[in-house]
Amino acid sequence: MLTRSPYEPLTPTTMPARLGGLPEMTRRLGPSAEWRVREVGDGNLNLVFIVEGPAGSLVVKQALPYARVVGESWPMSLDRAYFEHEASMRLGARDPGRMPHMHLFDREQAVQIMEHLTPHIILRRGLIDGTRYPMLGGHLGRYLARTLFRGSDWSMETARRKADVALFAGNVELCGITEDLFFTDPFHDCVRNRHNPLLDRDVIELRGDRALKLAALRMKTRFCTSAQTLLHGDLHTGSIMVSAEDSRVIDAEFATYGPIGFDIGSLLANLWMACLAQGALRPSDDEATSYRGWILALAETVWKVFVAEFTHLWLTERSGILGGRELLEHQDDAEGAALALNALLDEIWRDTIGFAGIEMHRRVVGLAHIAEFEAIADEELRAGCERRALRLGRALAVEPERFSDIADVSALVAELAGRDR
Amino acid sequence: MLTRSPYEPLTPTTMPARLGGLPEMTRRLGPSAEWRVREVGDGNLNLVFIVEGPAGSLVVKQALPYARVVGESWPMSLDRAYFEHEASMRLGARDPGRMPHMHLFDREQAVQIMEHLTPHIILRRGLIDGTRYPMLGGHLGRYLARTLFRGSDWSMETARRKADVALFAGNVELCGITEDLFFTDPFHDCVRNRHNPLLDRDVIELRGDRALKLAALRMKTRFCTSAQTLLHGDLHTGSIMVSAEDSRVIDAEFATYGPIGFDIGSLLANLWMACLAQGALRPSDDEATSYRGWILALAETVWKVFVAEFTHLWLTERSGILGGRELLEHQDDAEGAALALNALLDEIWRDTIGFAGIEMHRRVVGLAHIAEFEAIADEELRAGCERRALRLGRALAVEPERFSDIADVSALVAELAGRDR
Repeated sequence: MLTRSPYEPLTPTTMPARLGGLPEMTRRLGPSAEWRVREVGDGNLNLVFIVEGPAGSLVVKQALPYARVVGESWPMSLDRAYFEHEASMRLGARDPGRMPHMHLFDREQAVQIMEHLTPHIILRRGLIDGTRYPMLGGHLGRYLARTLFRGSDWSMETARRKADVALFAGNVELCGITEDLFFTDPFHDCVRNRHNPLLDRDVIELRGDRALKLAALRMKTRFCTSAQTLLHGDLHTGSIMVSAEDSRVIDAEFATYGPIGFDIGSLLANLWMACLAQGALRPSDDEATSYRGWILALAETVWKVFVAEFTHLWLTERSGILGGRELLEHQDDAEGAALALNALLDEIWRDTIGFAGIEMHRRVVGLAHIAEFEAIADEELRAGCERRALRLGRALAVEPERFSDIADVSALVAELAGRDR
Repeated sequence: MLTRSPYEPLTPTTMPARLGGLPEMTRRLGPSAEWRVREVGDGNLNLVFIVEGPAGSLVVKQALPYARVVGESWPMSLDRAYFEHEASMRLGARDPGRMPHMHLFDREQAVQIMEHLTPHIILRRGLIDGTRYPMLGGHLGRYLARTLFRGSDWSMETARRKADVALFAGNVELCGITEDLFFTDPFHDCVRNRHNPLLDRDVIELRGDRALKLAALRMKTRFCTSAQTLLHGDLHTGSIMVSAEDSRVIDAEFATYGPIGFDIGSLLANLWMACLAQGALRPSDDEATSYRGWILALAETVWKVFVAEFTHLWLTERSGILGGRELLEHQDDAEGAALALNALLDEIWRDTIGFAGIEMHRRVVGLAHIAEFEAIADEELRAGCERRALRLGRALAVEPERFSDIADVSALVAELAGRDR
């Protein structure tokens, strides 16, 4: 039904006629004559529709042949829907329940029909509103450990992993966006960049900061050459939907094989930036301090649960060719196995803070900014927050040896945020 | 002609009838009735024929559906001929003149028809004979720099590099042999291993050496996850053919994307092991010392020419996405570019000695041993050489910080070799 015609973007008006014959839709929604369709896409790339009917609701996501955030002048392959679907199937299976359920994928139309998450909102919105999510840290820490461990050569049958490396090596276009937007654009005068004019001097300083630029290149090299595991590839707080009791990860179209620390660093960077915005977002210092403390604790929980779950998986599911059981446990050397795990966790931590530091720069001086800062009406206040994000980001990227533990980062975030009004 | 029948191993008897209709053969050899065919394969995996006719000679290499070194009990896919051919085309183009010229490839018969290198011999044979090759160090250093740089994201258009990553991710079977035989088998009690019985105590010690086993796992992780460039994948002195003036690299069937230091470390390890065999191979101490000195100088030349050529390519051909010109040269920071290069060369050096250390272990206690040691008839003398190779290998793999420069390795090789009679 969906594929009989060549690719054409859906609209609320054409959707009942175009998708009304799909049993995957009518079974869950009721007859198409009674559908109500809203386009709700607020992301940078795609059309997203919520379709409601008498029997329920669904989300229909369709890729556009260009980047929505820029327009038709930035053409973009529809294949990204295919890679998103392939990645979502894998990530969803590696940590069941954390991705929306997928009902149907049509490659030619670049359409995914999936579960409508309700009453969920985007986590970034929740962090602006000041909502607390008691389950979130555990959910995200386990999601990171399970998806990142289970897509690697520590866990997978290596022929399957190599086939996946090959498959996702095809996601060149979206991977290229990450390569440019994270690691290159913010550090030179690129037409895609934008920044708060009050930061003009900071940006000049940044562009002359050799140590920072070498760190950006170092992390780009890690990203491009270290094929440790299947990454979500864009795991910021806008790619997570939350309700009081549930947490879901969406938008995996940037998936690629890369270093474990990339997803973790992206997420933690966005939590730490949210901390830096609180002073400007809350009516009172007490509220700001209290909520900032909650986000800092959330970030620590994410990391600590990640470490605990990764350790558990290392001990119980280390069946891949990098497991090394023949060399360690099978020679009665459990302590050696613990040392190997610690060395790996150290490397993941260094990558995590390196990637977090880079993420902060692109969110202040690159193309894609964050709603927490954009929501600050006062330009001076906003510049202060952004400047502190740059300071934090530089410390993480250039002086990783200052942060042997996540508590060291929390302390610096709290110190910087203490100056935020 | 070649593909009309299903796969069948060639023999000297059937070759004229089966290949006599190929213009690629008759043009270079003359009519098939006058061919003389010898099977000369001394490698571990394939049939290799030299075919001579009135007009010239050719080599015909055909994969067998099993590992020749073990027999039909170790089945192996014929696809390795395809990967060898694909790799040879690329490596040959990246450093023209260092691979034999390929005339024809037939995938179904797993046959490659290529230039007959004459009067070349295998380098390992030359190192046993004590021959000096004045051009060799320059040839190999440039080969390493050119092939390893030009297959990477420092040089290639990234979509092409990602397509090659995907292609060679399919070489699972031969890559798996490397993963097992280099990094795992030697460090546990594996049925494929063999060693000189006089080393029984050393092997027990080795198997209990936690630091060594952790180093092996660390280097295996580098090999499996660090997709820096297209490697030859088996670059020892048995994969190099030499004449007085020419040097060629053969047998690229183990090609895979991996860390730059792997090929370099494999090669240097084999040169250093050849040094350790000299005392037992030469009739006089003077001859042994002198020829050992030549091999040590050769290894230093290989590394230094590699560094010089890699530096030249870095400065002149750094067109890939990891080049970072936008961040450095384009912002008038040539010194920053030099620092980035130095950091990369440091990493390559650490990888190089790490892989060299692992290679030495597998050549003494794993499946595939080296002719330099095997040629030593006296078991005690041979055990002494092998033991020194293990000592050197352990130092390189476990204490890399001892070797800031290749001269530090030369000094240790010379010191160990000084005790070799």
